[in-house]
Amino acid sequence: MAVDDMARMKNILLVICDGMGDRPCPELDNLTPLEAASTPNMDSLVKNGQSGLMNVIAPGIAPGSDTAHLALLGYDPLKVYSGRGAYEAAGTGLNVQKGDVAFRCNFGTVDEELKVTDRRAGRISSGTDELAAALNGMKIEDVEVVFKEAVEHRAVLILRGPGLSADVGDVDPHEVGAMILTSKPLKPAGEKTARILNEFTKRSYEILNEHEVNKKRRDEGKAPANIVMARGAGSPPDVPQFSEKFNGLKGAAVVGISLVEGVCRVAGLDIMKVSGATGGLDTNLNNKVDATISALEIYDFVLLHIKGTDLCGHDNDPKIKAEFIEKIDASVGRLLGNLGGTKDELIICITADHSTPCCVMDHSSDPVPILVWGKGLRKDHVETFGEHAAAKGSLGHIRGVDLLKILTGLAGRGEKLGA
Amino acid sequence: MAVDDMARMKNILLVICDGMGDRPCPELDNLTPLEAASTPNMDSLVKNGQSGLMNVIAPGIAPGSDTAHLALLGYDPLKVYSGRGAYEAAGTGLNVQKGDVAFRCNFGTVDEELKVTDRRAGRISSGTDELAAALNGMKIEDVEVVFKEAVEHRAVLILRGPGLSADVGDVDPHEVGAMILTSKPLKPAGEKTARILNEFTKRSYEILNEHEVNKKRRDEGKAPANIVMARGAGSPPDVPQFSEKFNGLKGAAVVGISLVEGVCRVAGLDIMKVSGATGGLDTNLNNKVDATISALEIYDFVLLHIKGTDLCGHDNDPKIKAEFIEKIDASVGRLLGNLGGTKDELIICITADHSTPCCVMDHSSDPVPILVWGKGLRKDHVETFGEHAAAKGSLGHIRGVDLLKILTGLAGRGEKLGA
Repeated sequence: MAVDDMARMKNILLVICDGMGDRPCPELDNLTPLEAASTPNMDSLVKNGQSGLMNVIAPGIAPGSDTAHLALLGYDPLKVYSGRGAYEAAGTGLNVQKGDVAFRCNFGTVDEELKVTDRRAGRISSGTDELAAALNGMKIEDVEVVFKEAVEHRAVLILRGPGLSADVGDVDPHEVGAMILTSKPLKPAGEKTARILNEFTKRSYEILNEHEVNKKRRDEGKAPANIVMARGAGSPPDVPQFSEKFNGLKGAAVVGISLVEGVCRVAGLDIMKVSGATGGLDTNLNNKVDATISALEIYDFVLLHIKGTDLCGHDNDPKIKAEFIEKIDASVGRLLGNLGGTKDELIICITADHSTPCCVMDHSSDPVPILVWGKGLRKDHVETFGEHAAAKGSLGHIRGVDLLKILTGLAGRGEKLGA
Repeated sequence: MAVDDMARMKNILLVICDGMGDRPCPELDNLTPLEAASTPNMDSLVKNGQSGLMNVIAPGIAPGSDTAHLALLGYDPLKVYSGRGAYEAAGTGLNVQKGDVAFRCNFGTVDEELKVTDRRAGRISSGTDELAAALNGMKIEDVEVVFKEAVEHRAVLILRGPGLSADVGDVDPHEVGAMILTSKPLKPAGEKTARILNEFTKRSYEILNEHEVNKKRRDEGKAPANIVMARGAGSPPDVPQFSEKFNGLKGAAVVGISLVEGVCRVAGLDIMKVSGATGGLDTNLNNKVDATISALEIYDFVLLHIKGTDLCGHDNDPKIKAEFIEKIDASVGRLLGNLGGTKDELIICITADHSTPCCVMDHSSDPVPILVWGKGLRKDHVETFGEHAAAKGSLGHIRGVDLLKILTGLAGRGEKLGA
């Protein structure tokens, strides 16, 4: 590549406000939270850039945060998604490998008959590292067990060995009072995995029930964390890494939750750790912005993910959602200010991974608004950032899986086909 | 599914005005019939909802009414359509089964050399039930013959047995004075079917030529209906039924013509019979609206199909088309009025299955306008229902095969992929 080409290439900043898309809210004079919020910085990017609407997976499909981020990173979840487990496991920092089958787990409490008495083992908050260490490294047949504690009562399990498949049912019965389930193969390919998982579950009870941590918990009148209940089997997709897919693009992510971190890790992005980033409304946005700016000095592509908007949607809090969007806008202002002249070397895209309309209190299939700004790029006639305004934008209706192609194209880092 | 989720789900009403899409008509000051018509009720839905344009099959493809309705019900006709026969047969009420090969047929008149002297057997209008009964139930090799009369000189034929294929040519030569054709396999897989069909044709002549009904017709100086001329071989698609495809959605249809009824039956919708529904401009729209409202009390999804608009397009009658659209709008008003508060629990979509521009006098590939309304959903800036206004709508350009996914998504009945 010639030096001139290098000089013309831009870096890419992708800001994803989780669940930001919404519907008209009666509490906000029938505006959406994004429309009701005062967002001078994002509006300025729209005014000098392009906007549009995006079906993150496909028209009519409500995305999860894992599938949405797969799509936004250029991987079609309709083709490569097999379940949440692999991303949860990767989100704890484990190195999930091709062929692995991974699970989300709870430490739970069962009686001698393996009937569930507490799905969260008394919301256990300490000692799970010791319990996990007692299970990690176990061998069952020719399969290696990787087991790691996560936040509170949560944990992740990876089965690693030949002939495994994510086509197996859960062990977790998902309700108190029910018996621990025997995992069933969902397809013949899942038989071995179900057998190994059931043996692991049995051994987890044998080992954990007698563990010192649980003896102490019983003494303190607390529910023992005496079994591992796995669910949500999933394998990492067998796909090229992000940098291979996008012409050597070196990427990093500043993320709000471990599930999204897991997707980014599986894609091959480096994860920037940020102190004070909580994934909640109290997250330290300043620190996340600073980490983003630092990352942009080293990486060609940075994904900044902010979770809070989604929580307000799930909680039907349109006013708090609008206020949080104003905080995000202020952070965008801080980011632009601190980038200074560097921002002219950037393509900036701000969007959502899905809509979480307050009136729905869950993810919905409503397309999300998107803005793209870059010095010297085309502008359209849209002047503000919002769901309705974006419908008139020059980007039209795009699909999530095309986003990175569009952005790398605009950044002079895209593909050319033909002569 | 929790009660809360159930409560948030809406029902879906899909109104399809056959061939409503059009082009500017000089007779209407270069407005389309939909634009020239006064449509206050549909305009009100647009003003408070979303609109857009839809390529029912794909850009540039002029849909038939059968393929269009397949797409609108979520089945991609480019993948599953093999011919009109199966839908014609299902439209007469026959239960078309997987593996069947079905044909549209005419009762025709041939001389002793099997030269066609009348393709409609003197437009025979009575006695075809007796003629059909003489052929129905026949066995040829290991194939069962199901044969039923339809309107006037029309009939349908189903061949049922192992090893059949719709890859066979017509028997009907499509012109008077030509010899009855020997059906040819279009692919090797069609060899058996062609052989059976040719044998059926031969036997139909032998049986019908001597039939009492025809002896009487000859005595009365009428052309005898002495042969069955089959055409348009088709098999029903091997696809999941509508309710299975869309998360248990229970659907019914109020339809104007048997071909569309056939598509709805094959998809697994229940058919509401409506007295006074003619499929013409004289159809009893009030009765159709009443049937629709009744159906909405029982079903989650109701398709209301109105044929008249298409006829005006074929006849190049833009003014009559505009007048008929005004009648449809009045029916929409009646519907909304009679639904009362129930309409807040509905997603309403009004569109066409294809354009039949008056100047073309046939189906064209021009995309069709579409409106979607539901309480609490997003609105766009479009204020009237029409081809040009819809081009600015927030739905953008969608494909017919995505329509039901979009509507079920908005109704809270859609798919979620991921966590």
